[in-house]
Amino acid sequence: MTTTIGIVGGGQLARMLALAGIPLGLRFVILDPAPDAGAAVASEHICQAYDDLVALNELAERCDVITYEFENIPASAMAHLAAKVPVHPAPEALAISRDRLTEKNLFRELGIELPPYFTVDSRADLEAAVAKTGLPAVLKTRTLGYDGKGQFVLRAHANLDTAWKTLGSVPLILEGFVPFDREISIVAARSIGGEICYWLISENSHQGGILRLARSQPDDPFTRQAQGYVKRILERLQYVGVMALELFCVGDRLLANEMAPRVHNSGHWTIEGAETSQFENHVRAVAGLPLGSTASVGHAAMVNFIGAAPIPSEVLELTDVHLHDYGKTPRAGRKVGHATVHGVDAVRFEAQLARLRVLADAVAC
Amino acid sequence: MTTTIGIVGGGQLARMLALAGIPLGLRFVILDPAPDAGAAVASEHICQAYDDLVALNELAERCDVITYEFENIPASAMAHLAAKVPVHPAPEALAISRDRLTEKNLFRELGIELPPYFTVDSRADLEAAVAKTGLPAVLKTRTLGYDGKGQFVLRAHANLDTAWKTLGSVPLILEGFVPFDREISIVAARSIGGEICYWLISENSHQGGILRLARSQPDDPFTRQAQGYVKRILERLQYVGVMALELFCVGDRLLANEMAPRVHNSGHWTIEGAETSQFENHVRAVAGLPLGSTASVGHAAMVNFIGAAPIPSEVLELTDVHLHDYGKTPRAGRKVGHATVHGVDAVRFEAQLARLRVLADAVAC
Repeated sequence: MTTTIGIVGGGQLARMLALAGIPLGLRFVILDPAPDAGAAVASEHICQAYDDLVALNELAERCDVITYEFENIPASAMAHLAAKVPVHPAPEALAISRDRLTEKNLFRELGIELPPYFTVDSRADLEAAVAKTGLPAVLKTRTLGYDGKGQFVLRAHANLDTAWKTLGSVPLILEGFVPFDREISIVAARSIGGEICYWLISENSHQGGILRLARSQPDDPFTRQAQGYVKRILERLQYVGVMALELFCVGDRLLANEMAPRVHNSGHWTIEGAETSQFENHVRAVAGLPLGSTASVGHAAMVNFIGAAPIPSEVLELTDVHLHDYGKTPRAGRKVGHATVHGVDAVRFEAQLARLRVLADAVAC
Repeated sequence: MTTTIGIVGGGQLARMLALAGIPLGLRFVILDPAPDAGAAVASEHICQAYDDLVALNELAERCDVITYEFENIPASAMAHLAAKVPVHPAPEALAISRDRLTEKNLFRELGIELPPYFTVDSRADLEAAVAKTGLPAVLKTRTLGYDGKGQFVLRAHANLDTAWKTLGSVPLILEGFVPFDREISIVAARSIGGEICYWLISENSHQGGILRLARSQPDDPFTRQAQGYVKRILERLQYVGVMALELFCVGDRLLANEMAPRVHNSGHWTIEGAETSQFENHVRAVAGLPLGSTASVGHAAMVNFIGAAPIPSEVLELTDVHLHDYGKTPRAGRKVGHATVHGVDAVRFEAQLARLRVLADAVAC
């Protein structure tokens, strides 16, 4: 009777999915080659490579449904799984989001505004694309990019050679540089029955390409438009589970940056800041259960711990702050945990958030 | 660097302790002879008897600190552990609460009001005690009672023979019957540094000796008195962790019934109904971390699932309701899960609670 959910990947997202799903009576099996995978504390662990067919068969046999926590899974592995057991979100969504070109083509096809982009498969393509976008522009690998990796910001024509040498061995796209006012994201969930829910818009601050701070935006003027964008994607893909859509606000325009077919770092504040978290609603969706309310109470924010985490007792001394450790060995640039702050009183909330950020910044590396 | 907490017992309380502690970066090892122990999904599991010395040694070696989830652990096992590694709450608290007589003597010594009680070690003691309390009265085993087990309500002198035959082989006490208006409990936590926090009073409804419903009481008139009672106990015992004190309200008097040196069923609503749950604060306390805020938001209640749980999708369809499955095989009289309801709007809260109770009652056995 118990539904067992398989998760490809066993990092912090899988860990938080399992912690959210166990109270619902769900069980979890992760596939992750890392012996110290952070999700292993709350799931059974198949410790093998993502393309190991024996391991994939075992995962399919032990699970009723499969999901995944990151995009860069070999497409063949997902196809192998999907032939045996339901996979949510569908491998099509994964395939689209793995490739910036197909992703942007989908946005355009759905009438979702986005920055100009051009495929770059040769040095000549690059010249032609730059001629159209002007400078600055951003050269990106079509696949395998995350946390600012696989990107090169072109500021002058003299940069083109270096950029091409650095990235030119794989398919690329060039994006027009967007002088955005704000980076926001919307996280939404769709159930097997087609029910859709949205959390509050999150306003996001990055440093060195890595998310540092996400804050819920109770009255964001772009709310309706962002919901409309993500709804089109969810419905086109007949999507099941949680999806995040990252967006740029430029004046009164809302431009899509990229989508993530999974729970998202900018939705971590929903664990304490919303009635039902993104993690709970993702496992509800993939298990075929009804979605829970996404209602928020007051202000909420999330601060990432990058490279190292503050001493737990210092974080836990702060009121209305909740710690989420990922069980990872500290390493420069690695997300090792986060903390959320939430509250109804704005002054108190801002004060606690400021103290939390000081703690996080003091050890970040 | 990671603190590992050992838990003697691996049922639902250990399960919820581990789920609350993993985000704090804590790790858990349970000792439980049941192969299907509910906490095993979120901890390492030593599957041996509670008095197995090899297993106890292993638990002590693998853990930085030990706690427990029920009272009826062999005293020798706890002494064995305490000689090797810190045990919180201290074995003294466990020893006192295991024996209704020592527990009640402690209450009396601390000036905590309680119903009249008398030791009964013989048939003659029983006669003498009944002469003092009058009838009805309740004959109870001094040890190993829980969920109404090991009790006999004496309503007429003719019941004495049956009661004595049923329970007379072990040390007993006779308690005067208290015509209480309400049963309440207070759950509190004390840190290693002596900091104490209290959750809201819980009003509890039992059926057949088993808790069915617990509701938080934002303005209970007995709040201050209940806090005073439990504070005296916590400080006398230099207690570390969460304790529950069950109480009877009789007119304007507040009488202590019994204490539990652990997280308690009447505090399960704190998972969603308070800023920090009893489970999180228990693991914070035993790990030497600061306690979190116990502030409540609006109304909160918990409905136990006894014998069997409703279909998950029916529970999850209710708004502001959260499901907590214990991973147990259904069996008559067994607590297999609970759900919490909470909310600021009283009318909506009561409506959801009523619907939840209908679901629970429909399958209870």
